[in-house]
Amino acid sequence: MTEFVPPGTRYVDLPSPFRMKRGGELRKARIAYETWGTLDATRGNAILILTGLSPDAHAAANAANPAPGWWEAMLGPGKPIDTDRWFVVCVNSLGSCKGSTGPASIDPATGAPYRLAFPELSVEDGADAAAHVVRALGIERLACVIGNSMGGMAALSFLLRNPGLARSHVNISGAAHALPFSIAIRSLQREAIRLDPRWNDGNYDEAHYPESGMRMARKLGVITYRSALEWDGRFGRVRLDSDRRDDEDPFGLEFEVESYLEGHARRFVRSFDPNCYLYLSRSMDWFDLAESCGAAPSARAPGAGHGGDVLQALARIRVERALAIGVATDILFPLQQQEQIADGLRAGGADARFLPLESPQGHDAFLVDFARFGPAVRGFLDAL
Amino acid sequence: MTEFVPPGTRYVDLPSPFRMKRGGELRKARIAYETWGTLDATRGNAILILTGLSPDAHAAANAANPAPGWWEAMLGPGKPIDTDRWFVVCVNSLGSCKGSTGPASIDPATGAPYRLAFPELSVEDGADAAAHVVRALGIERLACVIGNSMGGMAALSFLLRNPGLARSHVNISGAAHALPFSIAIRSLQREAIRLDPRWNDGNYDEAHYPESGMRMARKLGVITYRSALEWDGRFGRVRLDSDRRDDEDPFGLEFEVESYLEGHARRFVRSFDPNCYLYLSRSMDWFDLAESCGAAPSARAPGAGHGGDVLQALARIRVERALAIGVATDILFPLQQQEQIADGLRAGGADARFLPLESPQGHDAFLVDFARFGPAVRGFLDAL
Repeated sequence: MTEFVPPGTRYVDLPSPFRMKRGGELRKARIAYETWGTLDATRGNAILILTGLSPDAHAAANAANPAPGWWEAMLGPGKPIDTDRWFVVCVNSLGSCKGSTGPASIDPATGAPYRLAFPELSVEDGADAAAHVVRALGIERLACVIGNSMGGMAALSFLLRNPGLARSHVNISGAAHALPFSIAIRSLQREAIRLDPRWNDGNYDEAHYPESGMRMARKLGVITYRSALEWDGRFGRVRLDSDRRDDEDPFGLEFEVESYLEGHARRFVRSFDPNCYLYLSRSMDWFDLAESCGAAPSARAPGAGHGGDVLQALARIRVERALAIGVATDILFPLQQQEQIADGLRAGGADARFLPLESPQGHDAFLVDFARFGPAVRGFLDAL
Repeated sequence: MTEFVPPGTRYVDLPSPFRMKRGGELRKARIAYETWGTLDATRGNAILILTGLSPDAHAAANAANPAPGWWEAMLGPGKPIDTDRWFVVCVNSLGSCKGSTGPASIDPATGAPYRLAFPELSVEDGADAAAHVVRALGIERLACVIGNSMGGMAALSFLLRNPGLARSHVNISGAAHALPFSIAIRSLQREAIRLDPRWNDGNYDEAHYPESGMRMARKLGVITYRSALEWDGRFGRVRLDSDRRDDEDPFGLEFEVESYLEGHARRFVRSFDPNCYLYLSRSMDWFDLAESCGAAPSARAPGAGHGGDVLQALARIRVERALAIGVATDILFPLQQQEQIADGLRAGGADARFLPLESPQGHDAFLVDFARFGPAVRGFLDAL
């Protein structure tokens, strides 16, 4: 699956064996990462970025790979995450297919891809792997951990499991645990992949590939990553020109919004490994910081998840300053989850602020609404 | 497909041929309906109910069928739609499989089910068929048309195409046209059915049935019919007991919310015809009252759909009084669409009120939140 990995990617070997939280272990596993800027003499200017489900470690252009990255507008000289000042590390998640070890990687014990023999993956495993990268780079204390979406979950886990490893934290559209609407969406995405006969219990290849299942999963993803408000303004009820329609198909694409989803899906289905998708998706459903910190599961009863257990878990995190940014139109990681993060970190002694943004782009706003996200992140980092 | 039809259902034959808005015609078509209460001597106490996509005409128990109906709490003696006063008619939509003619019905020209040979179905066709039922029952002027969800679309079309046929209107979680988020959801539901190899271009039977596609479509439906807020309180992160889990399936059901979706899907997949589902779903995407009233399509440009054309179309409707009820947590027919209906009808001279409700149950609230919907509907009808 090396075709998924950007050129210039670097690697840190994980300890072997690397023990997984839910049992099992990995041997000869490694984490893909990239860096920007220069680590200063005190090693005090390092920032770690933890990503959402699908991005690779190539967040922005750098010397090893001048191609634009997925956060190009946010990261670079003079940009909100200013690499003239900061040494920035972005890691590809454990379990992904973009260079780090995951279900699509070769199991050294068998010489064949792990597929479903990969051990159960949790957000905590990804956090532990990222912490190993930080230490391997000689960094004893990060200036900041920035986590987006799934990376916002991983960042909280990272902070909880590695006291003192970071001075501050920016949580962007993240959550301290998964809520049932988001679980339902992800469960349905996984079901779409698993129902595709070509998924074949994880034993597909390029010629027999669960393309339909991945397309459905991605379309459902995009629907929940954006917002109805944005689409009203962007697509309205505009129809495709007749030359872009298949008149033979009575239920074929007709509206611009359908074509937009189809385009997103086509670009995605062959660029992300389906088994990796299943593993990472499930890890988000499982994530619950209250459980993670050794307390009882946060929500044995419905509704309890909003309450004290998660806040108590957050309050066990020690950082000096924190910023939790959310977006009012986000239906997947709704605004109250970022407010909860700020509340919990504040209860733990941090100077923690909650910043709700009015971006119309929903959960994905941090990938597109740089007019709002740029100043917010810049302001926080400038004050460090 | 008679197994879908409740006992006691009655029928009105449509004119033969019955011409369809988008072309084609039906021969020997009929509409299933049920009634409650007694038509008074002046024939002035009749109320018509138009339903959402899936319900049959059995809205409540009656002499012909004492089983509870899908709106049992709202309809009956002394209930919000009080059958001691009102003569109530509920029709099953044209294109459905619950008694009215639809893609699952026998085409008299061939003796076989229509399947995809059924002509293109629009919301307007359903409205025309419902108007024919009303007139066939000897009703010249309805006291009120009540439309829920898709029935709210059909009701607006009914009123526009049949001036003078109703004195008043209650629109519940309806819309004057489909917006792109809802189109995207429905498009994905249809794609799930069409991707199921057993759909077979509409040529399935009981033994080879697109069960997986229907299950996916229904689950996605339920996700968008309810709300994240309701599910936070109802399910939280509660997991299934171990005896309700399949330990052999690494991606099987684990959380209560997944089991809830699975239960809903299982009850639905064999109780609604997949081709009928496709036709009715597509008719909602097509619906645009501005287009329907002969104006140019309301939204040639993105965003235009919010603007003047739809309001102008609504303002061409003549009713004395109207109530548009919406729910703040509805993501499928969002609140601004009911506000738009009230605004447009008011511009047309109606005494029209917009009533936003705080129900947590989303689009489906009118089927469950009787504490809010009961008094709202009762109050409107009492004042007629």
